[in-house]
Amino acid sequence: MIFTSDNAFGVAPEILRALGRANGGGVPSYGEDEITKGLTRRFSDVFEHEVAVFPVATGTAANSLALATLTPPFGAILCHEVAHVNVDECGAPEMFSGGAKLIGIGGAAGKIDPEMLAATLKTFRHGDVHQVQPRCLTLTQSNEAGGVYSLPELSRLVGIARDFGLKVHMDGARFANALVALGCSPAEMTWRLGVDVLSFGATKNGAMAAEAVVFFDSELAGDFAFRRKRAGHLFSKMRFLSVQLEAYLEDELWLRNARRANAAAKRLADGLKATDGIEMLGEVEANEVFARLPMAVFKGMMKMEAAFHPWPNPDDAAGGHWMQTIRLVTSFETTDEEVDRFLALVRK
Amino acid sequence: MIFTSDNAFGVAPEILRALGRANGGGVPSYGEDEITKGLTRRFSDVFEHEVAVFPVATGTAANSLALATLTPPFGAILCHEVAHVNVDECGAPEMFSGGAKLIGIGGAAGKIDPEMLAATLKTFRHGDVHQVQPRCLTLTQSNEAGGVYSLPELSRLVGIARDFGLKVHMDGARFANALVALGCSPAEMTWRLGVDVLSFGATKNGAMAAEAVVFFDSELAGDFAFRRKRAGHLFSKMRFLSVQLEAYLEDELWLRNARRANAAAKRLADGLKATDGIEMLGEVEANEVFARLPMAVFKGMMKMEAAFHPWPNPDDAAGGHWMQTIRLVTSFETTDEEVDRFLALVRK
Amino acid sequence: MIFTSDNAFGVAPEILRALGRANGGGVPSYGEDEITKGLTRRFSDVFEHEVAVFPVATGTAANSLALATLTPPFGAILCHEVAHVNVDECGAPEMFSGGAKLIGIGGAAGKIDPEMLAATLKTFRHGDVHQVQPRCLTLTQSNEAGGVYSLPELSRLVGIARDFGLKVHMDGARFANALVALGCSPAEMTWRLGVDVLSFGATKNGAMAAEAVVFFDSELAGDFAFRRKRAGHLFSKMRFLSVQLEAYLEDELWLRNARRANAAAKRLADGLKATDGIEMLGEVEANEVFARLPMAVFKGMMKMEAAFHPWPNPDDAAGGHWMQTIRLVTSFETTDEEVDRFLALVRK
Amino acid sequence: MIFTSDNAFGVAPEILRALGRANGGGVPSYGEDEITKGLTRRFSDVFEHEVAVFPVATGTAANSLALATLTPPFGAILCHEVAHVNVDECGAPEMFSGGAKLIGIGGAAGKIDPEMLAATLKTFRHGDVHQVQPRCLTLTQSNEAGGVYSLPELSRLVGIARDFGLKVHMDGARFANALVALGCSPAEMTWRLGVDVLSFGATKNGAMAAEAVVFFDSELAGDFAFRRKRAGHLFSKMRFLSVQLEAYLEDELWLRNARRANAAAKRLADGLKATDGIEMLGEVEANEVFARLPMAVFKGMMKMEAAFHPWPNPDDAAGGHWMQTIRLVTSFETTDEEVDRFLALVRK
Repeated sequence: MIFTSDNAFGVAPEILRALGRANGGGVPSYGEDEITKGLTRRFSDVFEHEVAVFPVATGTAANSLALATLTPPFGAILCHEVAHVNVDECGAPEMFSGGAKLIGIGGAAGKIDPEMLAATLKTFRHGDVHQVQPRCLTLTQSNEAGGVYSLPELSRLVGIARDFGLKVHMDGARFANALVALGCSPAEMTWRLGVDVLSFGATKNGAMAAEAVVFFDSELAGDFAFRRKRAGHLFSKMRFLSVQLEAYLEDELWLRNARRANAAAKRLADGLKATDGIEMLGEVEANEVFARLPMAVFKGMMKMEAAFHPWPNPDDAAGGHWMQTIRLVTSFETTDEEVDRFLALVRK
Repeated sequence: MIFTSDNAFGVAPEILRALGRANGGGVPSYGEDEITKGLTRRFSDVFEHEVAVFPVATGTAANSLALATLTPPFGAILCHEVAHVNVDECGAPEMFSGGAKLIGIGGAAGKIDPEMLAATLKTFRHGDVHQVQPRCLTLTQSNEAGGVYSLPELSRLVGIARDFGLKVHMDGARFANALVALGCSPAEMTWRLGVDVLSFGATKNGAMAAEAVVFFDSELAGDFAFRRKRAGHLFSKMRFLSVQLEAYLEDELWLRNARRANAAAKRLADGLKATDGIEMLGEVEANEVFARLPMAVFKGMMKMEAAFHPWPNPDDAAGGHWMQTIRLVTSFETTDEEVDRFLALVRK
Repeated sequence: MIFTSDNAFGVAPEILRALGRANGGGVPSYGEDEITKGLTRRFSDVFEHEVAVFPVATGTAANSLALATLTPPFGAILCHEVAHVNVDECGAPEMFSGGAKLIGIGGAAGKIDPEMLAATLKTFRHGDVHQVQPRCLTLTQSNEAGGVYSLPELSRLVGIARDFGLKVHMDGARFANALVALGCSPAEMTWRLGVDVLSFGATKNGAMAAEAVVFFDSELAGDFAFRRKRAGHLFSKMRFLSVQLEAYLEDELWLRNARRANAAAKRLADGLKATDGIEMLGEVEANEVFARLPMAVFKGMMKMEAAFHPWPNPDDAAGGHWMQTIRLVTSFETTDEEVDRFLALVRK
Repeated sequence: MIFTSDNAFGVAPEILRALGRANGGGVPSYGEDEITKGLTRRFSDVFEHEVAVFPVATGTAANSLALATLTPPFGAILCHEVAHVNVDECGAPEMFSGGAKLIGIGGAAGKIDPEMLAATLKTFRHGDVHQVQPRCLTLTQSNEAGGVYSLPELSRLVGIARDFGLKVHMDGARFANALVALGCSPAEMTWRLGVDVLSFGATKNGAMAAEAVVFFDSELAGDFAFRRKRAGHLFSKMRFLSVQLEAYLEDELWLRNARRANAAAKRLADGLKATDGIEMLGEVEANEVFARLPMAVFKGMMKMEAAFHPWPNPDDAAGGHWMQTIRLVTSFETTDEEVDRFLALVRK
């Protein structure tokens, strides 16, 4: 029973098999192979739009390279204050961009509050050399607190960004989970709303180490290939990176995996809700569940074979630490049986 | 018949199988898994020395992160003028180090000339703020021109570097090929000579995408883990990177693969030497062969199913382009039969 | 009647004369001249401590070079959320440090709240590669909101920084104004409390363009000279930079100028306090006065020959914009007569 | 008798007086003053072209900021192998550009050889992500070896750069000396040939610390103001920087000073040529003289009150060190009498 993170899980069998399939023979290196070249067509089909696609191995690389391509060194990147790029990347966006500044915006459930975004943007004086210049908004879908922006919510935030001349990046480390939660098309959740660049995550949802940076406007991609190479993220045996993405898209594996993870999260949440003494935090929209357990229950669980993380929550401290917030993440490998065993343990 | 590059080949079956073996179950991410932790012991055994090991996926990352750890932004990195880090990385060492300067030194067969190294180091004034300060020497073993430094050659270069207070890095993208060529131990080719940090390559010799940065002095490794994360080179599902290295070392797969590649190169070279009209360039010490073909032969070969690269050589131009230099790279997958077929084509 | 900023004023006559005195003849360049060399002695005397001194021309350079010397690229610099380095330098500390992250801490009157500082530092996990690592605290004395830290306040903040292993930098763009306000010695306000590096400002208080970066621990200064050169901040005709600092310290010009500025600010504040309808913000401790004027008075003043800046204040908006906050800065050139004329205008 | 460098000299009296003239009163800071604003008109007149002008205090800043504006981090800057930006700036262009690479080209008398430039540019593959991409050529006029490019020489080099899509920067630390040497107009030596950006030096020719970055195409200047601020090179009391440039251009002070320096160099060279045993190196075109002295004469001179620098010359070593190369730099302050006294000492 592993609920620590979706990256604690392994590789989907379909993707592992694809690695074997791609092996053998000599093929051009550094992305000149046919599998890599074919990704453009596949992604363009999925997104119903001509796109430029760049595979990389980590989400840090995908996000940081995308943000650096959109933002000059004297620029500012607006993000949620708890966004992964702001608090969990050891300053990677700063490194890749040559020292751009991340500006954290507040908002409930990990979602940027549109009023706060607009208010912050208004405090910047366009062209004032004493200030970094806002150039990019990054939105995480689904986000670090388990939330999923609705299409109208996304549309409003993108609109504000556009009004101030910003480009829009979407951190889609859990893109599939959000898509399945909203039940919309990839196009509807991205370029149709005005998103310029997407970090399309696959690693958390069944790949070994593969993400795709997807530019909906290929003009913007200009420097990306140089930046990727220069950062050590161009793989010589690129086909093994690309084939993961190929298999991920094939027969809707990505959507099937995400549906499984989301369903497991829902089952988990429903079970916890029905359990006395447990308090749920936020809606369970994708594959993350946040709940507050009585401290005794939490301590008991820590001794069991269930693995999960406590989560920082100021309310726990304020309440005298009688309750402990935890985060439970489900994955494409999580079974209903595991969920039920976890719930049984909690109830005990 | 693929002789374009060793990275045009696939993954050794032992390594592919290891990926499958590592799959399944939930394990701690970001290198906290047992496979990754076990690498320290394995590498320490191989090198007969306590080492700190950091897996990364590309040679660009391994070299650039290592050099950035050894060199401040105002430092200089001395390298051969045709070293990969100097001419084939799109400025990656400059990016990772925050703008350190690479100083190219000449020397035959891709080997740094010790006289030139010493002469260059003497032109720098230690502590003069107007100049970048030499802090690091990087040696490629085996190198871009197919050469392998002998142990006395390495020792002399390392000695000069030490005399001027420099740290020494070894770019071992083809470390195994060099080791097998010299017939010495890993210890003898590295820390016993004074090498501080090694980029231990596996990708070109059978891994999918795996290199190890090996610090022989763990004091020097201080910042490395932060730099790796910040550059997007810390993998969440790290076990799949680490297990490639584990399998690579297991049962001397790395040495067996390198012996195969070197033997194929030797057979190729011997065959070419015995062929009229062909001129060999340099000794074939590892898995690269450089030869000059009459232009007619070259043009004929280009139409065949043999794949290889012409190589820039000013002598070809100076000689009126009657000859064309080519590079042939063999790999762990190259068979004697392929070599013989290639030779037959050339002779025809 | 200029109250816009202390950098809107000119050069103290003593300093202008010193420039002429330094002229003539050929002297060694790049700081090898006698005037520059003599600064070490002068500053060591003033601070009653052996110091290493580096003149630069701007406060941006002084602060950013000092912070970059104390903080690795993966480090974090803690500062007040409205600190000049955080909001008014177009990301200069980020540039000089290679992408370190500034973490803004709240607190009234531009002073970092010690509880908030400690709480923020506790959220960082030492050695966790996913997070930037706090390495430096920067304190502005006197600060952007006109506040002056008392010695106990400074001591407490420095103590917290030390407890978490941070180095301490002081942004002393208005160091003299703070010193005069507290009536203590330079030593008492700096190294005796544990401050490691000081940006000792002179420009705002009568120099043309001169600041000194003062290291109380010369060990820490290691890289500074290289960083200064590399950033274009080593002057060839350095004596003209150094002689400004020499004259600034001579006969306590710096303290006399600061006393004048502070006294003018006090007279201004007393006058405003005694005026109906005007609300003072914070204590006037150095040479800045913040006050809220009825909007009609503000608008009237804007038509007069008095120059000053409105200041952003959310309370103004919240109150329906019936009041307007303004900032008034006095300088070494501000006369009592000017202050009185200003007060007369306000009352009219 | 100072012949060490033109930056060993002081400030022209006209410029020192101008500093006093600019003093007094409160004026807008950060370049919003009338003196700074007026520079656009003055420079546009001098260059017979609409220009964008940015004053900075050092040549390092002028060159590095200009090059960083023209070159992305993955770009290459082509320069002479002994260019100041390549060997005497501690890697400043690398810092400002975020790690761009300088490629040194050979050529006699400090002048880039056009054949070598074209040959080097041909080795780069446009769009190949493995290589830095050449984006900028920088030419020093007059250069580090005392040479001055003729207009046809400049035209040819600029033409080659244009053919390969490069922008052209001119390092004019000694622009006036070159201009006077050629007897042409500022327009003829810059934009009419295709130069895009000029570092217009004043410090070496009589200013205290002032250079102007001049963009002939204001489109290119886009980011410059942000980069200047972010690098700490925007002065708060900017008028004192700008007024130096104003006085420098007034009544052709710049040309008069340069004529004086050049005439002194010519007198010095003519005298040395007429002296037995002394060998001249290169033509004396601007204000630098390179000569080889018999070692005995050199040693004798070192004991006299004449100050000058020995200069590294491999020929001296090859010849058994019987001769010593020296560099003599004249300035606007050098008198004929000083030159004659120096010559008398040599002859003795």
